[in-house]
Amino acid sequence: MSAHPRLSLNQATIKYADLAEALAATVTAGYESIGLWREPVQAAGLSRSIRLVEDSGLRVSSLCRGGFFTMEESPARRSSIDDNRRAIAEAHALGAPALVLVAGGLPDGSRDLVGARERVRDAIAELADDAAAARVTLTIEPLHPMYVSDRAVISTLGQALDIAEQFPLGVVGAVVDTFHVWWDPQLLAQIERAAGRIASYQVCDWATPLPADVLLGRHYPGDGVIDFASITAAVEAAGYAGDVEVEIFNQQIWDAPYDEVAARTRDSFAAVVAPHLS
Amino acid sequence: MSAHPRLSLNQATIKYADLAEALAATVTAGYESIGLWREPVQAAGLSRSIRLVEDSGLRVSSLCRGGFFTMEESPARRSSIDDNRRAIAEAHALGAPALVLVAGGLPDGSRDLVGARERVRDAIAELADDAAAARVTLTIEPLHPMYVSDRAVISTLGQALDIAEQFPLGVVGAVVDTFHVWWDPQLLAQIERAAGRIASYQVCDWATPLPADVLLGRHYPGDGVIDFASITAAVEAAGYAGDVEVEIFNQQIWDAPYDEVAARTRDSFAAVVAPHLS
Repeated sequence: MSAHPRLSLNQATIKYADLAEALAATVTAGYESIGLWREPVQAAGLSRSIRLVEDSGLRVSSLCRGGFFTMEESPARRSSIDDNRRAIAEAHALGAPALVLVAGGLPDGSRDLVGARERVRDAIAELADDAAAARVTLTIEPLHPMYVSDRAVISTLGQALDIAEQFPLGVVGAVVDTFHVWWDPQLLAQIERAAGRIASYQVCDWATPLPADVLLGRHYPGDGVIDFASITAAVEAAGYAGDVEVEIFNQQIWDAPYDEVAARTRDSFAAVVAPHLS
Repeated sequence: MSAHPRLSLNQATIKYADLAEALAATVTAGYESIGLWREPVQAAGLSRSIRLVEDSGLRVSSLCRGGFFTMEESPARRSSIDDNRRAIAEAHALGAPALVLVAGGLPDGSRDLVGARERVRDAIAELADDAAAARVTLTIEPLHPMYVSDRAVISTLGQALDIAEQFPLGVVGAVVDTFHVWWDPQLLAQIERAAGRIASYQVCDWATPLPADVLLGRHYPGDGVIDFASITAAVEAAGYAGDVEVEIFNQQIWDAPYDEVAARTRDSFAAVVAPHLS
């Protein structure tokens, strides 16, 4: 059975697969695209990763992830900027149009959310020329507000766009990840505002209760309460025509066989997301 | 040692105390005000509760809680509206100026957040005359977005104000609870907008990681990452001159002796919140 032509399997959904295993499971389940993470790419080596991806015939929808640059000026901040430059180069080499950026949380001991958010913007300004030269879009991912202290001080699509709009189209954009933004009363209006800025659309579902580790409370599309119809239609109307990734952090899914997960992801996407793609 | 004259101990902070015990602990620790919950009031009986409160000499800063009216028209919805009318009467009888309303989550099986939010507004419209007659402010509490599916479809102060502003000043207002709204990039602007609409200010802190039950991840002010200086100054500048409640849901704090909790709450408030009250 073939997958929807725009469906991409984000590698984090089969977290324990190495790159070769992830590519194989994705091809076997009939996908045309995969979203990669830097850690398994580095484990395989960049040159070998490029060959493996070419041999697979898959597109690379995005590379996860850069970011984590909320700290004040320091050697740690320089190190983060340098690492993000390497991530841009890796995305370019792998043919990924988007480098997903997770902002980072409050620095240790800090209560200054406003300052941390300004430093995200400043870091992106440092990286924009490299990204433009590499034709890789720096793609800011708003994370759910429950992660604001420890993961990402950018919580809404509106915030991501406030930063992205300071840079040229194609250089800085935003992720719409249903899990992170579905609750936002301004979501549909912000997606409309985001025309030309959506550089990645990621889908997974939200179910209650959250598990003990709130990072892992994500589910196959259709297994929770998110209305994929309205969000997907809005993303389409905003002109996004790229691949749609399914990215699920869920211990049970991580523990299942990769082929089974890839197939079930493909089928749940076909049932509840694909009907709303044009 | 006396407490700050505007400090109020929300009864949920010493959840296992009955009403008499809660009043005693609050008086012993030198407070002038308490925030009550309906369950312990009902357990004591309303008439006896009124006498106990009068005998304590404490003010009642608010009554928690009404709301939970996101369901479609049905006997269950009628039952909820009736129960909210009783809550208004109880708040009036106890001398509480504010009835705190938690909206309720998505109805079972529903993915229609927009509709659920509209029904919150409609329910408040049904209750507004009763509230005005009782001189009790219907006080909408935005809850953190992590509760949107199961507790409250109202997630931001902006949403609460969008509803409140459809009704006269004093009839419908909003809670600012630091735990729920501290992450919001629009918070300070929305607090400024809320002039005359803030009917309750509640403080407690956020710390990471969240516990297994995300309802219980609240802490004494100062033990987490929230900047009480900027938020408290903004609430003051918006003209709020009422009591300030400390409401902490935390299993360890619930398991501690009531007098110890009341004293530690008083002292943490004195250290990190009171300096920012005029």
